[in-house]
Amino acid sequence: MLSARDGEFLVRPAVEHDLDALIELIANDPISAARGDTADPADRAAYARGLAEVQADPRNVQLVAERDGAVIGTLQLTVLPGISRQGASRVQVEAVRVRDDLRSSGIGRAFLRWVAEDAAPSLGASLIQLTSDASRTGAHRFYERLGYAASHVGYKLSV
Amino acid sequence: MLSARDGEFLVRPAVEHDLDALIELIANDPISAARGDTADPADRAAYARGLAEVQADPRNVQLVAERDGAVIGTLQLTVLPGISRQGASRVQVEAVRVRDDLRSSGIGRAFLRWVAEDAAPSLGASLIQLTSDASRTGAHRFYERLGYAASHVGYKLSV
Repeated sequence: MLSARDGEFLVRPAVEHDLDALIELIANDPISAARGDTADPADRAAYARGLAEVQADPRNVQLVAERDGAVIGTLQLTVLPGISRQGASRVQVEAVRVRDDLRSSGIGRAFLRWVAEDAAPSLGASLIQLTSDASRTGAHRFYERLGYAASHVGYKLSV
Repeated sequence: MLSARDGEFLVRPAVEHDLDALIELIANDPISAARGDTADPADRAAYARGLAEVQADPRNVQLVAERDGAVIGTLQLTVLPGISRQGASRVQVEAVRVRDDLRSSGIGRAFLRWVAEDAAPSLGASLIQLTSDASRTGAHRFYERLGYAASHVGYKLSV
């Protein structure tokens, strides 16, 4: 169990049964909705496929934060092996979401601290990396308070 | 074979025999050297381990650009499954390097175009992403000319 200001929550890998809660968390965000994550029932099979691929990969995990049986947050971790930084493995964080009525309650902070203090070391990684949309200024303050350095520019190309 | 302004080159997955050329490419860069990639012989086993982990993972590949039997460039591709963006897979690009005497010859441009036009679609990815150190202004122009959008802030945390 992890502790936030408003109480404890559990962190565990997502299972198929979490899919609708995950879709809702992803879609309940204006930036995600603008790029197509609108929780359209027609897209459910595509989300299910994405989750199944994550679940089947030993270097990927979709985690959920759970309280009183409800999914209240999520993030994805990917272990990236590589040659640079003397062959260091990195942990990449994607798709960070906390349920909107629980924002600013310290859940995201406790979740990300656990990634840095427990998950990344136990995965053999010495570096955590993530990108945040340039317009998410609140998220930038959040990551900077957690010690993350805004050292890079994040580029995307749709193909 | 891919074509750059100064001639053709071959793209292929790196093999163990490429390790010293890869270490040299990684280390021959002031930003990498400042974070410890100095091609110190004591680090060779760590680089070898990193390359072996990449080679053993079906979602990772370290590619080399080769001309006349010499390694003249490299980049790593990782396929990232996920639930956001309607379950889309992404291709992440890391550790992009071109031999310093061949910079501005169009090799990097041809290599990255091939990633967008051939590699990413054949890997089932609809998005390519990468981060570039904030101080690499020449690299930023390079990616922007290739169509990449500087839409994100890239955060790193050493643990």
